[in-house]
Amino acid sequence: MTEVPAGEYAGMGGRALTSSLVAKEVPPLCHPLGAENKLVIAPGLLSGTIAAMSGRLSIGAKSPLTGGIKEANSGGQPAQVLARLGYSAIVLEGKPENDDLYRIYINKDGVKITRDNSLRMLPNYDLAEKMKADYGDKVAMISIGPAGEMKMAAASIACTDMEFRPTRHAGRGGLGAVMGSKGIKVIILDDTGMKMREPKDPEKFKDANKKFVDGLRKHPVTGQGLPAYGTNILTNILNEAGGYPTYNFKQGRYDQAHKISGETQAETETARGGLATHGCHRGCVIRCSGIYHDKDGHFLSKQPEYETVWAHGGNCGICDLDAIAKLDFLDDNYGLDTIEMGVALGIAMDAGILRCGDAEGAIKLIHEVGQGTPLGRIIGSGAAVTGRVFGVERVPVVKNQALPAYDPRTVKGIGVTYATSTMGADHTAGYAVATNILKVGGNVDPLKPEGQIELSRNLQIATAAVDSTGMCLFIAFALLDQPDTFQALIDLINAFHGLNMTGDDVAALGKSVLKTERDFNARAGFSKADDRLPRFFTTDPVPPHNITFGITDEELDKVFDW
Amino acid sequence: MTEVPAGEYAGMGGRALTSSLVAKEVPPLCHPLGAENKLVIAPGLLSGTIAAMSGRLSIGAKSPLTGGIKEANSGGQPAQVLARLGYSAIVLEGKPENDDLYRIYINKDGVKITRDNSLRMLPNYDLAEKMKADYGDKVAMISIGPAGEMKMAAASIACTDMEFRPTRHAGRGGLGAVMGSKGIKVIILDDTGMKMREPKDPEKFKDANKKFVDGLRKHPVTGQGLPAYGTNILTNILNEAGGYPTYNFKQGRYDQAHKISGETQAETETARGGLATHGCHRGCVIRCSGIYHDKDGHFLSKQPEYETVWAHGGNCGICDLDAIAKLDFLDDNYGLDTIEMGVALGIAMDAGILRCGDAEGAIKLIHEVGQGTPLGRIIGSGAAVTGRVFGVERVPVVKNQALPAYDPRTVKGIGVTYATSTMGADHTAGYAVATNILKVGGNVDPLKPEGQIELSRNLQIATAAVDSTGMCLFIAFALLDQPDTFQALIDLINAFHGLNMTGDDVAALGKSVLKTERDFNARAGFSKADDRLPRFFTTDPVPPHNITFGITDEELDKVFDW
Repeated sequence: MTEVPAGEYAGMGGRALTSSLVAKEVPPLCHPLGAENKLVIAPGLLSGTIAAMSGRLSIGAKSPLTGGIKEANSGGQPAQVLARLGYSAIVLEGKPENDDLYRIYINKDGVKITRDNSLRMLPNYDLAEKMKADYGDKVAMISIGPAGEMKMAAASIACTDMEFRPTRHAGRGGLGAVMGSKGIKVIILDDTGMKMREPKDPEKFKDANKKFVDGLRKHPVTGQGLPAYGTNILTNILNEAGGYPTYNFKQGRYDQAHKISGETQAETETARGGLATHGCHRGCVIRCSGIYHDKDGHFLSKQPEYETVWAHGGNCGICDLDAIAKLDFLDDNYGLDTIEMGVALGIAMDAGILRCGDAEGAIKLIHEVGQGTPLGRIIGSGAAVTGRVFGVERVPVVKNQALPAYDPRTVKGIGVTYATSTMGADHTAGYAVATNILKVGGNVDPLKPEGQIELSRNLQIATAAVDSTGMCLFIAFALLDQPDTFQALIDLINAFHGLNMTGDDVAALGKSVLKTERDFNARAGFSKADDRLPRFFTTDPVPPHNITFGITDEELDKVFDW
Repeated sequence: MTEVPAGEYAGMGGRALTSSLVAKEVPPLCHPLGAENKLVIAPGLLSGTIAAMSGRLSIGAKSPLTGGIKEANSGGQPAQVLARLGYSAIVLEGKPENDDLYRIYINKDGVKITRDNSLRMLPNYDLAEKMKADYGDKVAMISIGPAGEMKMAAASIACTDMEFRPTRHAGRGGLGAVMGSKGIKVIILDDTGMKMREPKDPEKFKDANKKFVDGLRKHPVTGQGLPAYGTNILTNILNEAGGYPTYNFKQGRYDQAHKISGETQAETETARGGLATHGCHRGCVIRCSGIYHDKDGHFLSKQPEYETVWAHGGNCGICDLDAIAKLDFLDDNYGLDTIEMGVALGIAMDAGILRCGDAEGAIKLIHEVGQGTPLGRIIGSGAAVTGRVFGVERVPVVKNQALPAYDPRTVKGIGVTYATSTMGADHTAGYAVATNILKVGGNVDPLKPEGQIELSRNLQIATAAVDSTGMCLFIAFALLDQPDTFQALIDLINAFHGLNMTGDDVAALGKSVLKTERDFNARAGFSKADDRLPRFFTTDPVPPHNITFGITDEELDKVFDW
């Protein structure tokens, strides 16, 4: 850990900070697990304040999965606590000489690093119990499970939620493996004695926050859909649209989708004494999360997200919500990206390793990942390696990262984002589903190529900016439809930092972040050919619409011409 | 299989033909195991004639290992037989609808394709026995073992030698997996009733061949060193030079090298009733191969090549020639690239999967590859995947292909070839070891950066041309030192085809092949960053000379500026 020189990255937060630091200080051709890589953990510009939704933590490094730059962000408590402790970022660099494991404790008095091999191979939930015994449950925890210790390319970094459960993850790109390569098992953040961060203009800040919250509450997505059913509200919507990738992207509609929909999930949660509406961090007003109990009313997992339900559900032909919640728990516990795991499982099913729809087999396989058996290590290396090792042709990845829960042939805008994002296939990098399917921020026909490039471009720019604020991306639904709510966000930043940013400045920030990331990726070896979907999306039409992707390479190359 | 339109590739042979066809007809972003890839099997311009050394077979496709264009060539009988049958190339394209296996039989009457699932998972030696029963041992066989059927990225394509043993392999780049993806297990070539190919000018041809053979016989490498000790003569030489990669490239000298040297090997072969001097195909006058018997005087394997002995030997800390010959046999039998296997084993040793130097463990592991256990599939996917799956940092690959038996820090010229070759790390693509170490074709100090770019460039150009003739690359030793022998080769081509080529035309051919290949690779996504050695060659000095690679990226980028 080093102290970042004051000034060099001044005024940056979240993704802007992680990407700038990685792009400047990490040799683009270094080994992601080597001493030259750096893991940057940064709260956002508004984290640690009373601003609603400001609890996202950005984590960046050169990715062991994609080989390019990576920023993955997570909800949960750590961003707020870290920001209140006064840190703009934690930077883990170098590499210990041997295989020892360390814990880091940060409080108002400073940083304490302790060798602690007793933590070895502890799953995240067990680790949380152990930490709770040492520090109580008012602290926040950032940690890796066995997958990160084993340096698997699908390993996540876990963040604890309000119940001190390790349920929120910086999932994508294998950042858990980078943390593992540094020998850091867990970081405990304790803000006892610290106060809420103070804005430069408290009155203006408070006023802006009120307008901001009002905007979120009155938008149908953030005010009604997400609170009631969580992200899994999307299952029925995408399935209806024919854009729900089923059986490893062989079709766009799943006849068992109703069994695993958000509506069914919320009903099940409520009936069993769980929670269908719950926040993942203090200060959340959308509360799209929840708590999923088993048949006997005991905690099974947090409410699995839409992408998780899809990855292990329709993608694998599994229509049992309890099995999916169990898989979600195991992924969280071993410290694994649920999207990468589900897609790898779907490929393993294509390879004949387990039967399509075999929930018990899938659970057994995720246990193998956590235990590091050879087969488990294959799956834990992600979808691309799984496809390669088993000689499977249908491997839905971009830049080696597994595609999320929207078929790019049917929802073409998100296909453009998958193909061109600096992050590899990533729905959160420019969520064109909003405009293609939910009709938020306009209406661009998901089935036609027209308008998708511009849509994805604008969303990628806006997202890069939002990811730098520490704000949850879900605020974007309201921002896209309500100019006043967008202005309220800008007012929040200006009031807090004493700035005079405009909407144009926000766009400029987003463009600057993307440019920095693309420059790193080019130096790491990415070319135009990496901004493409796998070939089968061009050659194989997907039912029920029976269409291919249909956006040309030349068009894709225009995404970053602004 | 299709008939290539007459004229389109007229006048091309070997690598010029395979690379031109792949570059023109294979979509660079297709999946290597998909229907769009094509496997091109082409004898050289002089194959099937009485010209000495003309028995190399070029096999090309988009590589499942590197993702780029690939030409791997092999000795053995098939090139001569295929050329005498009148074929410029066999092109396997498309993909069968199901998993059936096929055998192909080609004789003077045409081509017969037969479904034959009884061949499934037969190792190459067993397959040869079965084919011998059907066709006798005067035919030539091109085949894949279980590794190719399982579509492993390290799978080779085997060619039979003069004893109808599957000992010669187009080893590199996983072409066996492409053949497997086409469902083709074996191709039998029967030239019964066909004559030697007739030159346009028989007298001039005969005369040129005599001069050519005389040149080879009088050069110390091709006339003495290689016949007496085979390629493994290099062990002592490279070890002495400090360029013998030991323990997965941790040091450049192996204290047990004398136990596995070419001298020890030849002595062992002779004492046990094997052969220390033997050709791999009819028409060979160098005869660098041999036959290795076990302690009881029974055939164990053909004489393992230097790279094979190194990969399983010094690279893995194994100093038992019998164990190495057994590993060589297993690689040939399962159909695996010996370099890729040895390097993957070295990485597995670094990962703690087996102890460094554990010969029995290595043998067991190669059996696992042949059986397709999960661990076997990891190793069978090659060095890069093995490193990734086990989170190992020291992974000696370029473009995902394992480095051969010369440390690029100590033998810098070959390092330039590894980094920049269109093929991934490949010593045969521009064998700078000749000039760096053997002082053939001049003398460029292996330890200094000066002159290495030009050396590698010139050798890569010359090699691309030689690979198009069907000539064994070992003729290059004599060509580099003897202008008369180089002229004799040109005379052979001119006399046979009725041409008036000059030395400049040969260079132009080589450049044209390289340009075609680099263009394909660029379209497949390769950039400058792919023309680099792994980072540890820059950061970690290698004993005994304690130097790093030391050739800058800017210099590497000049290799193809001619």
